[in-house]
Amino acid sequence: MSPVALPTQHAAVLYGPKDLRYDDRTLWPPAHGQCQVAVMSTGLCGSDLHYYLHGRNGDFALQSPLVLGHEAAGIITAVGPGVKNLVPGQRVAIEAGIMCNTCDYCAKGRYNLCKGMRFASSAKTFPHLDGTLQERMNHPAHVLHPLADSCSFESAALAEPLSVLIHAARRANLGAGQTVLVYGAGTIGLLACALAKAWGAAHVVIIDINQARLAFAKTHGFADATFCLPAAPKAKAPEEQLARAADNAKRVLEAFGAEDGFDVVFECTGAEPCIQMAIHTAITGGKVMLIGMGTRNTTLPLSAAALREVDIHGSFRYANTYPAALALLASGSLRNLDKLVTHRFRLSDTARAFELLTRGVDERGQMVLKIMLGPGSAS
Amino acid sequence: MSPVALPTQHAAVLYGPKDLRYDDRTLWPPAHGQCQVAVMSTGLCGSDLHYYLHGRNGDFALQSPLVLGHEAAGIITAVGPGVKNLVPGQRVAIEAGIMCNTCDYCAKGRYNLCKGMRFASSAKTFPHLDGTLQERMNHPAHVLHPLADSCSFESAALAEPLSVLIHAARRANLGAGQTVLVYGAGTIGLLACALAKAWGAAHVVIIDINQARLAFAKTHGFADATFCLPAAPKAKAPEEQLARAADNAKRVLEAFGAEDGFDVVFECTGAEPCIQMAIHTAITGGKVMLIGMGTRNTTLPLSAAALREVDIHGSFRYANTYPAALALLASGSLRNLDKLVTHRFRLSDTARAFELLTRGVDERGQMVLKIMLGPGSAS
Amino acid sequence: MSPVALPTQHAAVLYGPKDLRYDDRTLWPPAHGQCQVAVMSTGLCGSDLHYYLHGRNGDFALQSPLVLGHEAAGIITAVGPGVKNLVPGQRVAIEAGIMCNTCDYCAKGRYNLCKGMRFASSAKTFPHLDGTLQERMNHPAHVLHPLADSCSFESAALAEPLSVLIHAARRANLGAGQTVLVYGAGTIGLLACALAKAWGAAHVVIIDINQARLAFAKTHGFADATFCLPAAPKAKAPEEQLARAADNAKRVLEAFGAEDGFDVVFECTGAEPCIQMAIHTAITGGKVMLIGMGTRNTTLPLSAAALREVDIHGSFRYANTYPAALALLASGSLRNLDKLVTHRFRLSDTARAFELLTRGVDERGQMVLKIMLGPGSAS
Amino acid sequence: MSPVALPTQHAAVLYGPKDLRYDDRTLWPPAHGQCQVAVMSTGLCGSDLHYYLHGRNGDFALQSPLVLGHEAAGIITAVGPGVKNLVPGQRVAIEAGIMCNTCDYCAKGRYNLCKGMRFASSAKTFPHLDGTLQERMNHPAHVLHPLADSCSFESAALAEPLSVLIHAARRANLGAGQTVLVYGAGTIGLLACALAKAWGAAHVVIIDINQARLAFAKTHGFADATFCLPAAPKAKAPEEQLARAADNAKRVLEAFGAEDGFDVVFECTGAEPCIQMAIHTAITGGKVMLIGMGTRNTTLPLSAAALREVDIHGSFRYANTYPAALALLASGSLRNLDKLVTHRFRLSDTARAFELLTRGVDERGQMVLKIMLGPGSAS
Repeated sequence: MSPVALPTQHAAVLYGPKDLRYDDRTLWPPAHGQCQVAVMSTGLCGSDLHYYLHGRNGDFALQSPLVLGHEAAGIITAVGPGVKNLVPGQRVAIEAGIMCNTCDYCAKGRYNLCKGMRFASSAKTFPHLDGTLQERMNHPAHVLHPLADSCSFESAALAEPLSVLIHAARRANLGAGQTVLVYGAGTIGLLACALAKAWGAAHVVIIDINQARLAFAKTHGFADATFCLPAAPKAKAPEEQLARAADNAKRVLEAFGAEDGFDVVFECTGAEPCIQMAIHTAITGGKVMLIGMGTRNTTLPLSAAALREVDIHGSFRYANTYPAALALLASGSLRNLDKLVTHRFRLSDTARAFELLTRGVDERGQMVLKIMLGPGSAS
Repeated sequence: MSPVALPTQHAAVLYGPKDLRYDDRTLWPPAHGQCQVAVMSTGLCGSDLHYYLHGRNGDFALQSPLVLGHEAAGIITAVGPGVKNLVPGQRVAIEAGIMCNTCDYCAKGRYNLCKGMRFASSAKTFPHLDGTLQERMNHPAHVLHPLADSCSFESAALAEPLSVLIHAARRANLGAGQTVLVYGAGTIGLLACALAKAWGAAHVVIIDINQARLAFAKTHGFADATFCLPAAPKAKAPEEQLARAADNAKRVLEAFGAEDGFDVVFECTGAEPCIQMAIHTAITGGKVMLIGMGTRNTTLPLSAAALREVDIHGSFRYANTYPAALALLASGSLRNLDKLVTHRFRLSDTARAFELLTRGVDERGQMVLKIMLGPGSAS
Repeated sequence: MSPVALPTQHAAVLYGPKDLRYDDRTLWPPAHGQCQVAVMSTGLCGSDLHYYLHGRNGDFALQSPLVLGHEAAGIITAVGPGVKNLVPGQRVAIEAGIMCNTCDYCAKGRYNLCKGMRFASSAKTFPHLDGTLQERMNHPAHVLHPLADSCSFESAALAEPLSVLIHAARRANLGAGQTVLVYGAGTIGLLACALAKAWGAAHVVIIDINQARLAFAKTHGFADATFCLPAAPKAKAPEEQLARAADNAKRVLEAFGAEDGFDVVFECTGAEPCIQMAIHTAITGGKVMLIGMGTRNTTLPLSAAALREVDIHGSFRYANTYPAALALLASGSLRNLDKLVTHRFRLSDTARAFELLTRGVDERGQMVLKIMLGPGSAS
Repeated sequence: MSPVALPTQHAAVLYGPKDLRYDDRTLWPPAHGQCQVAVMSTGLCGSDLHYYLHGRNGDFALQSPLVLGHEAAGIITAVGPGVKNLVPGQRVAIEAGIMCNTCDYCAKGRYNLCKGMRFASSAKTFPHLDGTLQERMNHPAHVLHPLADSCSFESAALAEPLSVLIHAARRANLGAGQTVLVYGAGTIGLLACALAKAWGAAHVVIIDINQARLAFAKTHGFADATFCLPAAPKAKAPEEQLARAADNAKRVLEAFGAEDGFDVVFECTGAEPCIQMAIHTAITGGKVMLIGMGTRNTTLPLSAAALREVDIHGSFRYANTYPAALALLASGSLRNLDKLVTHRFRLSDTARAFELLTRGVDERGQMVLKIMLGPGSAS
């Protein structure tokens, strides 16, 4: 008997630094418990860019060609055996991580800490699990989340970065009535603001060194107030930088009449001076939530945190956030969130999209926030 | 009419560095809401020693003569107007801090963060509030805690340092069945061990550079196991010290088959290398509780904490801990706690007690842990 | 020396059931730690009405004439010795309860459970502490909360019932993204809806037997949806009522496609059939928060709660809620809250106000929600 | 090719009320992710007895023959494909429930509430999943928990009822230093006492109507004190019973000088009068944890709970408790736990074991607590 030819599909495959190819690939049928999804929109993020530029992200280097992309939504085109609740035609957000479901972390609901997690688009595990920058993919049904009719594919793709913030906000015990300070007015920082306001924060302030980004945050109602940090030459000695951070923090607090600090501080830059300021600008008994982690080692004014019981938390990805994120996105209460998507490309233009993300401003001088790819975003 | 002479009493008063005098002082009657207490036992602690040696403790310098001592218990000798529930003759532990009871922190039960707190024996507020190294003192009734008959004055004096640990343990969410690692085998570290065991910890390990202290911890059942860290010359560069800390952490984890770390880590040394190790030896999703804060600024392997969701908490003194501490002390479930009191002095010998505490070993080569003063401890 | 005549003021004083007199009273100067406040607006609540109609509220009967009113705001007219931070002319909300600040509940921040609490307008303690239905009153500074300029006196008076809901919501762990069901469309139920929405609830449904109240809730945007429960003759046997409650619950869940129930259920009627329904309409693992407690004993479908881990919480008044309530009221994010105030009276017309509250509808057939009294509400 | 005969094994199979047969059954090899376990000890519990006596347990009736037993431990004899970490010869506790791992409850770590849970020995799902009263069984590796060498098979079988208490205690936020009251001195009540003491409870009191059981609790150190409730004829009216419960509660509190109540009350009888007493004997702000749920509907003094903020919690089975339970059992800190196992049988004598459990006392008049079956318990 002659073999039946399986259908093929296209994928944007990274072979090495800046070596991204638009390949034809065999499309396998979904296995037990899986659905096949036509990916409609994928957002690009900083870790995708690291892989694109360097062929690695921190400790994790490509060991074989890899499809990037993990902020995505699509339409179910087929369901494998054993799948209930989901049917072809259904619109879903794709949660990229597949937890092991057998370890203690999974059992306790902290599956983001699962050491057996396979995360689509990451080179941490081998064989790598491909991401969403392809036309179709097979993915376990239990990490596909149905969309409300009012939720667009692009909105649903934003459920991923929003999940990062929801997870961080839960860990920081963010609640209504609190004052919130956010460092960094990129996509993550703006989402932090949007979430804080949706959850009833009393006052949301955002800090950056880029006045254009702050203007964007203010104009579109992400924050109640902004503070532009003067860009400064790198301090010569750690002590000088610490003193300057303490000084800058004092000016921030004075500017907003916040005598002692903000209830919750989201640090979304990963820059050491901001992490130092974050501690000084958190209220006695408050929380610093580290979201952007750039550097391995950091010098901290640690006694200023410890003696004032300012808790320092990190957060890693997210767990059990997609339903909440999608409900929030569908509710429309995150105002102007569509403004975050500044550029759109076809899947076949993925390399061009990464080049634009690298530059950070387009040919008309407009800043780049979130870039979306795929048929749900550009045709 | 000729004035009635008020009675006098003795107090150990610090006038400046190493200038401690045994003075006669007027004994005023207790004011509204106060009791007069005959202090029976006072334990000396590190901050007392700082004041004794340098006339200051960190940022807070003597502005007038000050009576030290804040770990104490005694007998009520008189009650002022408005005091109910307490009567002369009653044995009480003296909680040294007087919160303002009008700020938000007080209202929320976090009175240790009250900015209006006056703390007996501290030079932070002026006029200073005298401590317990005197024969009698007047103190508000609502911070005097009755003792069970089975609780000695010395035990009750230990309720203060134990409170520090109870507060820290509550903040770290320390619970039964957890694995606990303690850095530093001084009084605070040993109390951390004792508390962890009393609360049902599954495994308690203590680390120090001093083999004699570890032997003490092991012999008296404070810890299940010990680890002696090799004393090493100070690292030349921050990177070298961080690498060494990571290395030492790995050896600790290997020694105890704790693949990934301990659930709760109590850092009681304040030494930078130990704080660095603390992060590496906490389990993914676990807690580092900073208790001994020695240095203002600290270089941390921060991404190793943030990406593994290891929370870094500080703790400052305590709130709402005395009843729990006294109940625990009265229950006898803190085994061998009396062994922590290694030396006893009369109040008139306070200066000699401080000299011994400075040396850290007595003339027979015995190490000094807790020194107790007063008629309940030495006669 | 002849005595100086003290000024007088007016107060609405209850002498017995329906015996309310507009008296002249001596106005004493504020004592240590107190301020004198000119009361501008006082809202009437159900417990005030109980006292007015029956001379008692549950177990607590008048033992001497009593001034009612505990939902109030005003202007500081004088400050007593020892008062800092507050000055004459300042606008404040008046928190009616004065906690003892010496018991364990106070120390832990649960001062609403303080057994020594004296609550203005309550006959629980004797001598009674007069309430706010008077022109001026002296009250401790630490339970007077400054108002933002954008917060009216009537808004600030609503901080009291809003505090009840904030406290209940905190105890129920109400958070963003949750589904919320409220029983009872009176002031408390409507405030529950408003709060849930302000805190980011995903879906808020309100139930009542009165279609007019539900229409009000829907028109003014308090709830996303309403359900009108058919008024039914009282069931003959407990079993019949339980069966009917289970049945009605099923219909509610079907009506909203909530297969298993709502995340948080606020029971604000105190009616036994509603309490029974509340349990059946809470999601597995969810919360029932009892706010209106009418009857002493209640028959519950307890296994339907226990086996599904539906927690049953009560809430008593509030603690540490005023700052949050006032910030929320000042923010304007509680839409249409002013619509809750349906009628206004002068202080001298207090008896007429109580008569209207008793009837529940005014002469034009309009329903009565919140009645406000005083110069800030009617002139 | 002729088929290979599969090996067989014995199982105690329930065909209907009191129709228990010792059958020969085919032994299938373990499937993917499963291990085969030789069951060494199984404890009998109340729900097993219900099935044995009535062929049903509450709403769940046998629809086909069923093997009972879900408190068990054994030795791994074979591992199926895909199983890592476990090897033949390893000793394990068998967690009976298999969660779906795809629903929200599973993702959040509350898998005990998973609606797709299949629980070995329960007739709730069909086809039924057989329990542990057989020589060998295949079970998913991720719900098999390795035993420390110091943990016997019988101890490990007790990890199941202990898990019930650990789960309940976590939900009740049981912590060190609390006072604990337990209703019912059967196995569950005694385990509640043992757990409370292991977790550092300050004072543990147990209540029963059976003096012998209380004597057992006292003699073996499970509780600090006991209270024998007089057995009384059933009250004629609900009001009479409620009044009697309030009265009895008052006597309990007086007996132990607990003015206002106990911090945590574990209700392990399911009897309505005890549930009523439980509310009255919980401290203001405390917790009632319902563990034994016998009756569907219950009349409660609900305002006595709600107005004092006494939370009423139920608990259903357990989640994420086995590691903690086994660590606690291995530690030896649960004193005299082996005394709970009063009778032992061979698997072939299962019917006789159920008959003894039905009677509750053996032929020598000794009371029956936990009965263990299997080669690890009787030979």
